[in-house]
Amino acid sequence: MVSDKGLSVAAMHRICKKAGAERVSESAAIEMAKVLEEIGFKIAKGAIDYTIHAGRKTVEDRDIKIAAEKIWIKE
Amino acid sequence: MVSDKGLSVAAMHRICKKAGAERVSESAAIEMAKVLEEIGFKIAKGAIDYTIHAGRKTVEDRDIKIAAEKIWIKE
Repeated sequence: MVSDKGLSVAAMHRICKKAGAERVSESAAIEMAKVLEEIGFKIAKGAIDYTIHAGRKTVEDRDIKIAAEKIWIKE
Repeated sequence: MVSDKGLSVAAMHRICKKAGAERVSESAAIEMAKVLEEIGFKIAKGAIDYTIHAGRKTVEDRDIKIAAEKIWIKE
């Protein structure tokens, strides 16, 4: 665990393996958990803005979708 | 769970709450897990390119760091 209730390091290993990694260091998996936590936090912040703007109190999947689209570079 | 061994939906709820969400729908948490899985996959792909370029077989934390910097918009 990267931190209390952080993203699972095992899941990070799995993602790297799925992407084709031959071997993944423990520090790389921990770094990935940290990075995805930060990105997730940023997406959540953006999503909450959309939620409030729509006059709702509950974050919905469409808020996450639009916030994610704004935050990361599309290729 | 979004899929077999996907990112924990509970962790997604936690991230949204940490970002200040009052309430988070289950579908929003599932969407966040999906989005972060995709971003993680893209970062891992990028990291592997750096690993191979450096003549290594093991993905290290510096590979994840540089790949993450390239992939998402810095603010």
